[in-house]
Amino acid sequence: MSRLKITNAVIIPMTEENLIINGGEIHIENGTIVFAGSSGEAPQHWVADETVDAGGMVAMPGFVNCHTHAAMTLLRSYADDLPLMEWLEQRIWPLEDRLTGEDVYWGSMLCILELLKSGTTCFADMYFFMDDVARAVAQSGIRASLSRGMVGVAPTAPTALVETEQFIEKWNGAAEGRITTMVGPHAPYTCPPDYLKKVLAIAEKHKIGVHIHLAETRVEFDDIKKQYGMTPTEYLNDCGVLDFSVLAAHCVHLTESDIRILKEKSTGVAHNPESNMKLASGIAPVSEMLARGINVGIGTDGAASNNNLDMLEEMRSAALLQKVSTGDPTAIPSYKALEMATANGGRVLGLEVGMLCQGYKADIILIDFEKPHLYPKHDLIAHTVYAAQSSDVDTVIVDGTIVMRNRKLLTIDEQEILENVQRCARRMVGEKSIS
Amino acid sequence: MSRLKITNAVIIPMTEENLIINGGEIHIENGTIVFAGSSGEAPQHWVADETVDAGGMVAMPGFVNCHTHAAMTLLRSYADDLPLMEWLEQRIWPLEDRLTGEDVYWGSMLCILELLKSGTTCFADMYFFMDDVARAVAQSGIRASLSRGMVGVAPTAPTALVETEQFIEKWNGAAEGRITTMVGPHAPYTCPPDYLKKVLAIAEKHKIGVHIHLAETRVEFDDIKKQYGMTPTEYLNDCGVLDFSVLAAHCVHLTESDIRILKEKSTGVAHNPESNMKLASGIAPVSEMLARGINVGIGTDGAASNNNLDMLEEMRSAALLQKVSTGDPTAIPSYKALEMATANGGRVLGLEVGMLCQGYKADIILIDFEKPHLYPKHDLIAHTVYAAQSSDVDTVIVDGTIVMRNRKLLTIDEQEILENVQRCARRMVGEKSIS
Repeated sequence: MSRLKITNAVIIPMTEENLIINGGEIHIENGTIVFAGSSGEAPQHWVADETVDAGGMVAMPGFVNCHTHAAMTLLRSYADDLPLMEWLEQRIWPLEDRLTGEDVYWGSMLCILELLKSGTTCFADMYFFMDDVARAVAQSGIRASLSRGMVGVAPTAPTALVETEQFIEKWNGAAEGRITTMVGPHAPYTCPPDYLKKVLAIAEKHKIGVHIHLAETRVEFDDIKKQYGMTPTEYLNDCGVLDFSVLAAHCVHLTESDIRILKEKSTGVAHNPESNMKLASGIAPVSEMLARGINVGIGTDGAASNNNLDMLEEMRSAALLQKVSTGDPTAIPSYKALEMATANGGRVLGLEVGMLCQGYKADIILIDFEKPHLYPKHDLIAHTVYAAQSSDVDTVIVDGTIVMRNRKLLTIDEQEILENVQRCARRMVGEKSIS
Repeated sequence: MSRLKITNAVIIPMTEENLIINGGEIHIENGTIVFAGSSGEAPQHWVADETVDAGGMVAMPGFVNCHTHAAMTLLRSYADDLPLMEWLEQRIWPLEDRLTGEDVYWGSMLCILELLKSGTTCFADMYFFMDDVARAVAQSGIRASLSRGMVGVAPTAPTALVETEQFIEKWNGAAEGRITTMVGPHAPYTCPPDYLKKVLAIAEKHKIGVHIHLAETRVEFDDIKKQYGMTPTEYLNDCGVLDFSVLAAHCVHLTESDIRILKEKSTGVAHNPESNMKLASGIAPVSEMLARGINVGIGTDGAASNNNLDMLEEMRSAALLQKVSTGDPTAIPSYKALEMATANGGRVLGLEVGMLCQGYKADIILIDFEKPHLYPKHDLIAHTVYAAQSSDVDTVIVDGTIVMRNRKLLTIDEQEILENVQRCARRMVGEKSIS
């Protein structure tokens, strides 16, 4: 039994609107929170093996990045400011064809390094060479929900089904439970109905959820409508996908009726504001979805279209973008934005993370508020959402284990990762085209 | 004569599209750049008093924040997520009424501290108690263009004219030239024609420019149209304001004809994307203005409506917002965004800053690229715009003087500022309402 105590914290537990607990204490046993509250109310005779003094810092749940492609950090700033199809077809896909398992391992490590340093303790990934992603997750100490991406119209479609099942059997629940898995059919426009049926059979058999891209672009919306006479959301519903526990990434182009379907089916949504902005995909109707009670989390998408994995920034962009696009400055107030990046994310992934309360996993970050841009201390929640920087994150705890302290990673070697990433990227693009 | 040399830098001089100089060297004499280029081409016999080794770092011009209200850092996160008029009338203005010169001094110091730590070397300010702002600028070593805000419809209107003239006489060209001044009529809707005439007489007499808010909200646009039968831009043009050298902040609501007027009159524009998003003011037609050849810089606006003063983030938001709002992912490519935040800003303020070239002021920042989120090194300009964080700024030089090194401020006492700011804020809002 390992016992960790956090003392002297200002706690934002994300269990109740705008709740802030001064003089807070958190008790953790074997990776699970057994107490989070005012120190005066803490069990008196509970003794910790290790104590973290959080003086001057705010303790809150680690961020949950609901949608990314970890190894795409390797393609960060490789191709920008291009029309979507030119970007994909001429730049991203040819490079992805050259990726090896080793590349994916180091790219995932770089992603995890960046995530931990910016306070993200859990991420949902969809990519390939997933054994290598899982290895990186296991070694680094982060939590992740992993999916082998499956493109039904590609020559690899049958292999992807086999690999998915092998991957689930090998990794679901691995790394002390930090790794969970979902099936990952890529998108409505790449997965025909009969393929989706095979994918769902795997989800059914293993009792796991579905991670899929949905209605990201206007082109997808129009194409699916033309091909099936349905919206992408209606198409997934028609194929039975939405009867499962679904994480739908993007959901930019939705009709009124689509929103009703998502609510009815309790579909979880990953909103990716910066990727949607950068690729000019459009603005998801997040305020409407939230008003209907749809559970919307936040993702960064891959670093090739963002180009960082900074959830503090992503949450800020989510709030600001809704305000300006709806014309309503009260849209997505600060607590709501913080909730999307933490508690909602946990729910979207079906994990007991994203809140600091008894029985939840001890995925906790400490943010250092002794920074000029976080003064004066009028409102700690507004500060976190509208002013904080990822470099303010001082300490990161995942599953009760301290993985970063005073901004130093304790589980992985930062320099080794940077060197290997640069080596892999050089090989991929050739010496000349990289600094 | 003081001579400073920067060696081993990767230089992004902002003098030519996408130009990057590896193995670069910069020579500075008495605050002015005398050489910036490849070390092989540097004058051989030039000897420095002090040398900065910029190994692993990128040297670029410091950011120019074209529009802020420095002391509003005191109101950071004091009131958020409210409708504009409620925010102003019930929260911001009552608090501003209670501000003292001492508050404005410490609020400005906090602003400057945050600006320097995030790589901004020059800012344009409009506020009151401007002597106290100027003192903070002089002591801190930053560069600024300062304006006493003048509200023509307020009881203080006549005093503001007198104070403006006194301020200009005392401070224009002060602090070794780091302080310049402009007249600051607040906005079309607060300054009637006869008042603007008096303001312009001061500008004329002292040969200085005009800093003004323009067309920030739809309400302003409609009200001015109703009152004068003209758009806000036409109104300023009609009053002769645009015949001066003008820095127009916001410019969100413009007609085709307004854009033609701004081009014809060579009006400089300060785009404030995050403030416009947060207050739901609207989206400025930046791509159109740039396409017409209008000089558009970037500002953060005050910290009460942002809530940070981070120009890296602001530049990123400017690019992403134009892409999604125009539906064009090629809008504001990375070099253009960086240019807005540096060279364009210098031009908007009429100062020789924002480029690293001979004869320009030595306002230079060194960004540390040895960070996970800046790997692998595919494209340093895209990295800067789309992935960098303000905490990556390692060294800041203003007017040839090193004011920050290894993230430590050399000219001001960070702890003293934080303590005084918290004390001032407590007094303003009362003990109970602040953490």
